[in-house]
Amino acid sequence: MTQNIAPLGIIGLGTMGRNLALNLADHGVPLVAWERDGALADRARSELPDGTIWATEAADLARRLAAPRAVLLMVTAGAAVDAVIDGLRPHLQAGDVIIDGGNTDAADTARRQKNLAADGIHLIGLGVSGGEEGARRGPALMAGGDPAAWDRIAPMLRSIAARAADGTPCCERMGGGAAGHFVKTVHNGIEYAVMQALAESYDLMRHGLGLEMAAIGETFATWNRGPGGGYLVEIAADVVRTRDSDGAPLLDKVVDRAGQKGTGRWASLAALDLGVAAPSIAEAVFARAVSAARDDRQALAADTPDRVQIAPTDLE
Amino acid sequence: MTQNIAPLGIIGLGTMGRNLALNLADHGVPLVAWERDGALADRARSELPDGTIWATEAADLARRLAAPRAVLLMVTAGAAVDAVIDGLRPHLQAGDVIIDGGNTDAADTARRQKNLAADGIHLIGLGVSGGEEGARRGPALMAGGDPAAWDRIAPMLRSIAARAADGTPCCERMGGGAAGHFVKTVHNGIEYAVMQALAESYDLMRHGLGLEMAAIGETFATWNRGPGGGYLVEIAADVVRTRDSDGAPLLDKVVDRAGQKGTGRWASLAALDLGVAAPSIAEAVFARAVSAARDDRQALAADTPDRVQIAPTDLE
Amino acid sequence: MTQNIAPLGIIGLGTMGRNLALNLADHGVPLVAWERDGALADRARSELPDGTIWATEAADLARRLAAPRAVLLMVTAGAAVDAVIDGLRPHLQAGDVIIDGGNTDAADTARRQKNLAADGIHLIGLGVSGGEEGARRGPALMAGGDPAAWDRIAPMLRSIAARAADGTPCCERMGGGAAGHFVKTVHNGIEYAVMQALAESYDLMRHGLGLEMAAIGETFATWNRGPGGGYLVEIAADVVRTRDSDGAPLLDKVVDRAGQKGTGRWASLAALDLGVAAPSIAEAVFARAVSAARDDRQALAADTPDRVQIAPTDLE
Amino acid sequence: MTQNIAPLGIIGLGTMGRNLALNLADHGVPLVAWERDGALADRARSELPDGTIWATEAADLARRLAAPRAVLLMVTAGAAVDAVIDGLRPHLQAGDVIIDGGNTDAADTARRQKNLAADGIHLIGLGVSGGEEGARRGPALMAGGDPAAWDRIAPMLRSIAARAADGTPCCERMGGGAAGHFVKTVHNGIEYAVMQALAESYDLMRHGLGLEMAAIGETFATWNRGPGGGYLVEIAADVVRTRDSDGAPLLDKVVDRAGQKGTGRWASLAALDLGVAAPSIAEAVFARAVSAARDDRQALAADTPDRVQIAPTDLE
Repeated sequence: MTQNIAPLGIIGLGTMGRNLALNLADHGVPLVAWERDGALADRARSELPDGTIWATEAADLARRLAAPRAVLLMVTAGAAVDAVIDGLRPHLQAGDVIIDGGNTDAADTARRQKNLAADGIHLIGLGVSGGEEGARRGPALMAGGDPAAWDRIAPMLRSIAARAADGTPCCERMGGGAAGHFVKTVHNGIEYAVMQALAESYDLMRHGLGLEMAAIGETFATWNRGPGGGYLVEIAADVVRTRDSDGAPLLDKVVDRAGQKGTGRWASLAALDLGVAAPSIAEAVFARAVSAARDDRQALAADTPDRVQIAPTDLE
Repeated sequence: MTQNIAPLGIIGLGTMGRNLALNLADHGVPLVAWERDGALADRARSELPDGTIWATEAADLARRLAAPRAVLLMVTAGAAVDAVIDGLRPHLQAGDVIIDGGNTDAADTARRQKNLAADGIHLIGLGVSGGEEGARRGPALMAGGDPAAWDRIAPMLRSIAARAADGTPCCERMGGGAAGHFVKTVHNGIEYAVMQALAESYDLMRHGLGLEMAAIGETFATWNRGPGGGYLVEIAADVVRTRDSDGAPLLDKVVDRAGQKGTGRWASLAALDLGVAAPSIAEAVFARAVSAARDDRQALAADTPDRVQIAPTDLE
Repeated sequence: MTQNIAPLGIIGLGTMGRNLALNLADHGVPLVAWERDGALADRARSELPDGTIWATEAADLARRLAAPRAVLLMVTAGAAVDAVIDGLRPHLQAGDVIIDGGNTDAADTARRQKNLAADGIHLIGLGVSGGEEGARRGPALMAGGDPAAWDRIAPMLRSIAARAADGTPCCERMGGGAAGHFVKTVHNGIEYAVMQALAESYDLMRHGLGLEMAAIGETFATWNRGPGGGYLVEIAADVVRTRDSDGAPLLDKVVDRAGQKGTGRWASLAALDLGVAAPSIAEAVFARAVSAARDDRQALAADTPDRVQIAPTDLE
Repeated sequence: MTQNIAPLGIIGLGTMGRNLALNLADHGVPLVAWERDGALADRARSELPDGTIWATEAADLARRLAAPRAVLLMVTAGAAVDAVIDGLRPHLQAGDVIIDGGNTDAADTARRQKNLAADGIHLIGLGVSGGEEGARRGPALMAGGDPAAWDRIAPMLRSIAARAADGTPCCERMGGGAAGHFVKTVHNGIEYAVMQALAESYDLMRHGLGLEMAAIGETFATWNRGPGGGYLVEIAADVVRTRDSDGAPLLDKVVDRAGQKGTGRWASLAALDLGVAAPSIAEAVFARAVSAARDDRQALAADTPDRVQIAPTDLE
């Protein structure tokens, strides 16, 4: 017999999910929690309050939620979201709300919203900004989807959000459809562009002007105190100044290959599809693409006897 | 008879010069001041302390400075700097130091340094960051030039600079030659790139997603509280949310033409000359070039009967 | 009773389809033709040889083809292709081949191939290059898909293709899947980039150097005779030199809005998805996006009294 | 006693200079030739007709020219041009014309024109297009400078230029000042952009689609027969298909570092200075800058134990 009932379910208790759950618990939101991975579940169980209800499967989770149900998904963006939704769907009914708090492509959110609408189930795409620390202490939340569904779940999310100086919670519905994930994607596109500009300025100072790492670190720190400052400039200063145990700049030892999770690319794809010019965001994505080809660079680095040198041509 | 003697001269008392002079006066640095423009001179005279020595011409200013002399130029970058230096030069001697605190192209600074070196006169290129308010209360100062000349004048400049949380003044010699102006130029190149990325994200939200101005303002404000935040994001939020007296967004009334003072262009020119890839900074400069052609856009806006429509071609 | 039987069906007899059909007829390939639009069908009927078999619907067309069937689609890329395939599919059987000769997004071709494979039906994506004239007299054909299916239909297509100086037909299978449409897309991406470079050089000469249209036309014509020459440079020279009936350069009267059919955008999307840096192709697409916003430019062109001028800021 | 007199002097008989001299000789233009380098002079002497007058120094060359003099410089762009002009200047007089046929930065030409104007000496900047073969058989010539000076020398240059289908010589004065070198620079900027677009499309086919070299070569060859074709596409097809003696594609053995002579960079600098957006040309220059940093890539290729891997961050 399952008698415990809560207003919000949460599926996925990795770093982000656990921190949001702890934040919700701090604000008195009773939770039904479900995490497949034993180790992650154990860790979350040891940190979440005793009143947390633990589900063992999708049907169990759905049963323990007050109708209309609200379920927050904090699983890895992509196929895992589809899998969890497919498993959950038979146990939901019209009026229930799924909230996807992952780093999801807005196009996927729009597709899933349309698909779930056939059963009257709402999907709110929720962009969560602020990283781990934000999730735990006060994330910025950018939502998209049905306004009535949002109104029902918004109070719980507003309670855990960061607050502006005047106390306003940083928790807004940006519009219908996938607006929340779209805005989060654009936000990350800006971050890509700012990091690219920081990399270009580093290169200008290091290889153009020939500054030492320490001087570049001072420069970024100086800039951070001026109008161009911000968190990314601040951590750039820290990164550049960090030294390895042997005293050498750590940055010189970092493997020359930048990864990407996809959000900058999605912002560029959206720009192309919407007919909006976003060249500096695209530049940042292309620079990461070049960076990613480290295997090619290694293969080409060898000065074997058969390598051919080409001089600039008479065409120029 | 000219008996008053001070350790620092300042030429040019426009907004930036006056604010730096007031800042220096607050920190007990005696000044010889010279400003050709009567109105500007009157305003500065009314604000600066009584002990300030007022020079009437270059020779007078030089005579009233303790040798080796130090003269801070706060005049408009470009030809005016050459003119002031030419007028001052006959009254200086080997070992004297000119400090150019303007927004000067690093290439000009290098040229002037070389030229003045023939007479043993030092030129320190000084990047001043923080705008009017920074100049008055604590600018970030980035210097380049001869180390011994710098050591002689640095204490006066350090006393007025912004300070880090640990009390370190934001006042550094970045290297020899035009390093100070170069670093300032690169800094402004980043600001160009960040503003371009903000503009692209605005466009994606406004014309791509169809968000209202108010929602975009909320978004920028939300971002500003996260890792992508910073002063430029903060003022972007303010700009987007500002309303005209009729309640309409003011931004929609701003003339569609961005100006530029040149520093982003210089950063791009430097990148090209030094063989450093700086595409996102160059994109920002090119976007401003497109923006500048408003006269062309106006001429092309008319739907006169002889205008010809071209369909996408079969080439595609 | 339907006794006429041909080896190739063709659906869609617009300009490109009609020209390919005439080309096939010239090379002795018997055709079953189907075109829904009465006017287009009438025109094609008047030009194609008497032996052409005319189908009245999908089932009829399928019935009149020798098995395994081969059907060339020359319909507008997008939803129309899906509609035609859906209508045709019940009348086809395993081993039959559909050839899509339209300007189709490679991603759509891959999706349709996978879908049709469930019934053992092959889809060959066929990039057709050379425009109307090429279709009529000798197109370049770039195919992608199943090798055995290709081998069966290749002789008919090779017979109508352009030929190299040594007689080799310009008709190749570039690889499996959507390789043909992909290669066609990349090809058009290059054309976008070349047209963008031509536009930039025009702008440099017209607005940078201040050359007259006639001089720019001479310049393009001169370049066309050198190593940078090619068809696009040649027509650029013609475009720039063309005069309206009043003697003024026609280009100055062309509406300032470039269209796009999508292939440059697809090339950029593919680059982003594949992690390949293609900045110059993306620039060309973004420049067209800027160009497309003519309504915005018109709205912003007015110098109404409430317009606000913004000077370059002290931030710079 | 120096009695031989010719209408045109030529200084510099390297590959380009010798070929232009041979072309001029073929068209009956008597020359006074001067080349400092013994080996180059010997080679030119053995190929040029007997009537060629050989000068031994600047004064000698000037003496043997009919006044007003015309001297064509074919020396390496940059300091060498200044040196030759300085040596020649004392032996020239008002009305004489120097023609700089080198790959000279338009800014240098403008500076030299202004400087020489003090003595009434004209400098015609002459862009020479077509490479070695063009110089020998019919170059495209783009001139800039004083119209009267041009009219005096134009007949000699027109006689050797390439000709259009209608017989018009490809030899034009594009405007005053440095217009000839400017137009040549813009032309090379386009070539940079086209080569960049070809490189991007190669990358899309090779690393995106996974095509074999041979298939890419076929593709370029196919494109070359269509509207996107031209000399650069044609040689791209050849380059991609060339095999080393061991049968492997030669391109895979070419050292991964592109050089540049400067013209693409000048075109970008000009665009920035003139306020014209030329992003695709700038992209091409930046891509070459990245390519040039091969030493850095080699240093970073090593997988030493202290290398640090960084995962994509939670910021994204």
